[in-house]
Amino acid sequence: MLAAPLAQAQAQAPALDEETIDEAEMLMDAGLSSTIGYEVVESLTTEIGPRLAGSEAEARARDWAVAKMTALGLKNVRIDPFDVPYWERGIEEAEIISPYPQSLELTALGGSVATTEKGVTGEIVRFETLADLQDAPMTGLEGKIVFVDEYMTRTQDGSGYGVAVAKRSGAAIEAGKRGAVAALIRSVGTDSHRFPHTGQMRYGEVDRKVPIAALSAPDADQLQRALERGRPVTVRVRLDTVSPGTRPSGNVIGEIPGRTDEIVVIGGHLDSWDLGTGAVDDGAGIGITMGAAKVILESGLKPERTIRIVAFGAEEIGLYGGIHYAEKYAADLDKHIVGAESDFGAGQIYQFQTRFGETKLDRAKEFQRVLAPLGIGPGNNEASGGPDMIGLRGAGVPVVTLKQNGWDYFDLHHTHDDTLDKIDPDDIAQNVAAYAAFVWMAANMDGDFRDPVMMEASQ
Amino acid sequence: MLAAPLAQAQAQAPALDEETIDEAEMLMDAGLSSTIGYEVVESLTTEIGPRLAGSEAEARARDWAVAKMTALGLKNVRIDPFDVPYWERGIEEAEIISPYPQSLELTALGGSVATTEKGVTGEIVRFETLADLQDAPMTGLEGKIVFVDEYMTRTQDGSGYGVAVAKRSGAAIEAGKRGAVAALIRSVGTDSHRFPHTGQMRYGEVDRKVPIAALSAPDADQLQRALERGRPVTVRVRLDTVSPGTRPSGNVIGEIPGRTDEIVVIGGHLDSWDLGTGAVDDGAGIGITMGAAKVILESGLKPERTIRIVAFGAEEIGLYGGIHYAEKYAADLDKHIVGAESDFGAGQIYQFQTRFGETKLDRAKEFQRVLAPLGIGPGNNEASGGPDMIGLRGAGVPVVTLKQNGWDYFDLHHTHDDTLDKIDPDDIAQNVAAYAAFVWMAANMDGDFRDPVMMEASQ
Ligand SMILES: [Zn+2]
Ligand SMILES: [Zn+2]
Ligand SMILES: [Zn+2]
Ligand SMILES: [Zn+2]
Repeated sequence: MLAAPLAQAQAQAPALDEETIDEAEMLMDAGLSSTIGYEVVESLTTEIGPRLAGSEAEARARDWAVAKMTALGLKNVRIDPFDVPYWERGIEEAEIISPYPQSLELTALGGSVATTEKGVTGEIVRFETLADLQDAPMTGLEGKIVFVDEYMTRTQDGSGYGVAVAKRSGAAIEAGKRGAVAALIRSVGTDSHRFPHTGQMRYGEVDRKVPIAALSAPDADQLQRALERGRPVTVRVRLDTVSPGTRPSGNVIGEIPGRTDEIVVIGGHLDSWDLGTGAVDDGAGIGITMGAAKVILESGLKPERTIRIVAFGAEEIGLYGGIHYAEKYAADLDKHIVGAESDFGAGQIYQFQTRFGETKLDRAKEFQRVLAPLGIGPGNNEASGGPDMIGLRGAGVPVVTLKQNGWDYFDLHHTHDDTLDKIDPDDIAQNVAAYAAFVWMAANMDGDFRDPVMMEASQ
Repeated sequence: MLAAPLAQAQAQAPALDEETIDEAEMLMDAGLSSTIGYEVVESLTTEIGPRLAGSEAEARARDWAVAKMTALGLKNVRIDPFDVPYWERGIEEAEIISPYPQSLELTALGGSVATTEKGVTGEIVRFETLADLQDAPMTGLEGKIVFVDEYMTRTQDGSGYGVAVAKRSGAAIEAGKRGAVAALIRSVGTDSHRFPHTGQMRYGEVDRKVPIAALSAPDADQLQRALERGRPVTVRVRLDTVSPGTRPSGNVIGEIPGRTDEIVVIGGHLDSWDLGTGAVDDGAGIGITMGAAKVILESGLKPERTIRIVAFGAEEIGLYGGIHYAEKYAADLDKHIVGAESDFGAGQIYQFQTRFGETKLDRAKEFQRVLAPLGIGPGNNEASGGPDMIGLRGAGVPVVTLKQNGWDYFDLHHTHDDTLDKIDPDDIAQNVAAYAAFVWMAANMDGDFRDPVMMEASQ
């Protein structure tokens, strides 16, 4: 009985008027029946293909993005350039030398140092988990090849990734400290195909850098079975990686100009790993967000706030694009109403997650209710907003994660097999519909997503 | 009304007595609960891995088979050696040079000649089917790279393969006749993963041999999309294949000796392509047939006829083992009651196909009824018996195909991804159960599967 007046006191006027909701619903319908999201990914993955951060292919991808954004009708299309450290893979090969000679399929992790041209050879010492390696004595691994065979759990929300990915850096660091000559890991992935999964690793402040590569799941299984037979297993690994210095990268930006100086920003990352054509990671995010913009442009509606689309550069190797964006637009961040990056494939969105001020959670509900016909339910208020929102999130800009079904995402993630055929046109259309409606509502609602206290603190 | 006496006149005494049927049922139960089939494949694929015909690895596989057959308790274990032409793949790489530079994933077909070390470069000319290429004018392809983009149909019985596989040889032959510098095909396979499918090709009597390779399905899609954009697409292909002459191969044979000089023969092929570890093709056939023998040996039963297990060598490159077997045992073929090779993966058996004399079709029904509890229904009388039964079949030896569900088989066939994790232990146990019961019944039944007329003709 006491709750009623309290709730009334906290209740705010709705952020969305009927007209905005009607427009959002119209945009959802248009998005669902549009093929533009798929077409954009098709164009990027076909005409550019793999586009490693700092590579000549990533530069071509920027030119592609400028042309595509312009053709779609975006305004103020521009490149924000920056430099990144460049790393490239060369020949990579491995084989069991004894007792069961045969080749193994692996791939260097991004940032790994090279072996010599002849490769390194050593006896395999297997650890079930990274924690086991971390707990291992500091002696006994000299001259050996460490193998961290930790598995990743398949989940809809991708939560298995954060746990499993620690070994990408950790295995090399711990192996190096203990005098090992190389480190191998079971790929950070959920498939059982013969595709190793790459991804960035970092040595941190180690005295000794050892080369590190990921085995495909069937090859990790094979090594495990070879070891179970009880005889010493010797493996040769060759990785011809190179790190020739810095190279240009950049963000590509386009806008649907609004009537105010406030900004709603969405995007994906333009770079990909070098193995696949970067369809689900993250051609999809580029297609979804450019596609959402196109659906709005085709509607003829004019937003109150500027809708900004960003194709971030060099996400994979260290979130360079996201960090650069927040630095370059630091002075404008208080004008940023909300940000969201799509970077989890092209699976259907099932949840509307937010990171809003505590007093603005009603607005998350308002938005979610409009999106509900797409099958999108309410989410928590702990959204990351996507990796390239790191700078905005850190600066207190509210962010949203339109949470996608990631059940299959880590089957493909960072492999040769991340190609266009893995994207379902209907699924990506649902994403386009959701982003179009979300960004339209954010650009036209009354007020914002920040707590008033936070606003005052920043003044 | 007239049919009844006629049917009675044709009806023969049952081939199987109650005791044999009871024993077969006991063997099926034992097979279903045995893990031996899986264990044999696990051992072969782990301890040997890929075992290309004529390679040193195939020689190690023969030693493995001798040791494994002996350990299982088979008698008269021996190697029948023969020589085969050897071919090996080297570096293989391809890339779109223009207008959309990026690498393509392909693999040389077995028997393909090499390119030069720099590779060959040419404009792609695409044909939807091999028939379209065969119908093409004899001029206009000089200096070009022919791309035969024909699809394979997914079927349970694998019938899509026979149609699709024609392009493996045909594309190179037709391209060479027309002055092209190389041929590419969409892989003969049903998956959409980034695995090219290899397999043997033959130039026949051509004047000009051009190199040929298979693109993975996603890469064939990519090339198709690049071409659809209407600009000339130039590709570079490098294949460092070598054909250094003949090398040793051989069949490995083991037996459960019977009381008569008659023989029932089952087997699989020991060699595999070099890309995967040959689990479904054809480690499974080795595991199923050695496993069936082990289940019989463990039962303590002694067969009337000798049960012979053959691990055929060099099947992939031209059925050398099957042909050699029929030649070496030509004088004994009239003592061969029936033959069957398992070479279609490890999927569950769903049909009992035969190639029996027309007067012995009742016996197919008798056998099928015993196998029915395993989910095995009646099949036609046009069984091939498996590829290495080619010589026996040609000599009129009755053959059986225990037809497996091949729905997924051509997803893996001849790819890097043919590895142990693709075999379901329960499915392979069903195969072991069926082979154990089938071979037991054939070794102990009254009479045989041949038409009396045929018998007379061969005397
Ligand atoms: Zn990503
Ligand atoms: Zn990524
Ligand atoms: Zn085979
Ligand atoms: Zn084969």
